[in-house]
Amino acid sequence: MSRHWVIKVGGAVLEAPDQLAAFVQQLADLRVPFAIVHGGGRRADTLASALGIPQQMHEGRRITDAATLEVITMVYGGLINRQLVARLQALGCNSVGLTGADGGLLRATRRAPEPIDFGYVGDIDATSLNLQFLLGLLAQGIAPVVAPLTYDGNGGLLNTNADTVAAVLAAGLAATGPTTLVYAFEHTGVLAHIDDPGSHYRQLSFTQYQSLRASGVVSNGMHPKLHNGFEALKAGADVCIARYDALRAVFKGNMTGSTQLVRT
Amino acid sequence: MSRHWVIKVGGAVLEAPDQLAAFVQQLADLRVPFAIVHGGGRRADTLASALGIPQQMHEGRRITDAATLEVITMVYGGLINRQLVARLQALGCNSVGLTGADGGLLRATRRAPEPIDFGYVGDIDATSLNLQFLLGLLAQGIAPVVAPLTYDGNGGLLNTNADTVAAVLAAGLAATGPTTLVYAFEHTGVLAHIDDPGSHYRQLSFTQYQSLRASGVVSNGMHPKLHNGFEALKAGADVCIARYDALRAVFKGNMTGSTQLVRT
Repeated sequence: MSRHWVIKVGGAVLEAPDQLAAFVQQLADLRVPFAIVHGGGRRADTLASALGIPQQMHEGRRITDAATLEVITMVYGGLINRQLVARLQALGCNSVGLTGADGGLLRATRRAPEPIDFGYVGDIDATSLNLQFLLGLLAQGIAPVVAPLTYDGNGGLLNTNADTVAAVLAAGLAATGPTTLVYAFEHTGVLAHIDDPGSHYRQLSFTQYQSLRASGVVSNGMHPKLHNGFEALKAGADVCIARYDALRAVFKGNMTGSTQLVRT
Repeated sequence: MSRHWVIKVGGAVLEAPDQLAAFVQQLADLRVPFAIVHGGGRRADTLASALGIPQQMHEGRRITDAATLEVITMVYGGLINRQLVARLQALGCNSVGLTGADGGLLRATRRAPEPIDFGYVGDIDATSLNLQFLLGLLAQGIAPVVAPLTYDGNGGLLNTNADTVAAVLAAGLAATGPTTLVYAFEHTGVLAHIDDPGSHYRQLSFTQYQSLRASGVVSNGMHPKLHNGFEALKAGADVCIARYDALRAVFKGNMTGSTQLVRT
């Protein structure tokens, strides 16, 4: 059985033309089933700003009012998602752009408004994962490209953390066979010193992560990757945090240039 | 073999909450395979205007510069498409939102810049239709919801007429079995007198259409529906132009309340 790959890529990589080109080329060369989950927060900020829709963040998370939900539906579900699919098709990678609503892939529950009202933000109901739909696409050689939006089952969409979406997909696939989750972004991995790309931890256990977190070494942006990554690891997936251009090595099983999460 | 339905719905219906509700409820009650193709020009106009991107039309067709292509990718491929899928899911209709790029559904060629440069506008290569992908979704009970965007095979998306997309899908399906194409919009059908909803032609042949066109009875908005509708008819589909709330009757084979295209 061939290994399944779930690759989460940040919006920053997708917005830099040369980084995007390097990223998609590596995927095109992979020739095994993969799913992508993407972000797009910066582009959403740009559009919201151009439309005069003020954006409010709370601990790095977007407070999603009705106007902001439309913005991210356009940017995540439309612009970034559809452009990425068109790019992959040009490289001979058949793919399909999805939100959680499509094919009933992932449902979520709107987060309770206490203590902070995040608006139209959803927490995934992991049991809702339509694994049959996901596996069906992968078996046909069609790469799912998933935007970080879910649906509430009552007709609405919900903003959902992309790192969590990726971890839930990987956890679901891991129950069916070997699966690797890769968080691809602009750094080599989890860095001991933010300015030194060579200072990445080769391996990181949950215990180490907790002490790094306590000492403040883990940044705000890294926390959701590690939190969700360890969840996927617990569910049986292999998990790696890597630079967007290190995927070729990672795909070959060489993770020394990146940070691999480990069980002990 | 159960009949396939392809329903094109205009943006005006989708933007009016009560019309949208009536439209999706009829589809949810259908319980047979269907595909939807939607428009969204008005909403695209609103977004372009809010972003200060001037829109230029030529004979009712949008000249699509790079900024406008992003606008319609967001509105057609994101907002309208994803919201419609979420609405259908709430009614128990499994569905998936696609552009022509997704699953390699429909490729197009950018229109030559002479005599008018329409920009990023694509003319569909009908032989590119990925019928296997379309039939696979329908067989799984997943309704394809298709935005009027295609891909050029070189990494780009193209703006493509929604009426044409619907006709090409219907023509492809008609080669595999009984298929009906419905153009659903806010009028009862092709009207002899625009202000009289009861004045619709019950049946319309290509010869009649040509004489109506010559006498100026057919409006600008109706022309693409009829032109494309007769193409689909030639390819073996049944074709009907109906009010958005007349679908229940049309699905039962009663087309007297709408305009049916006929071969002679």
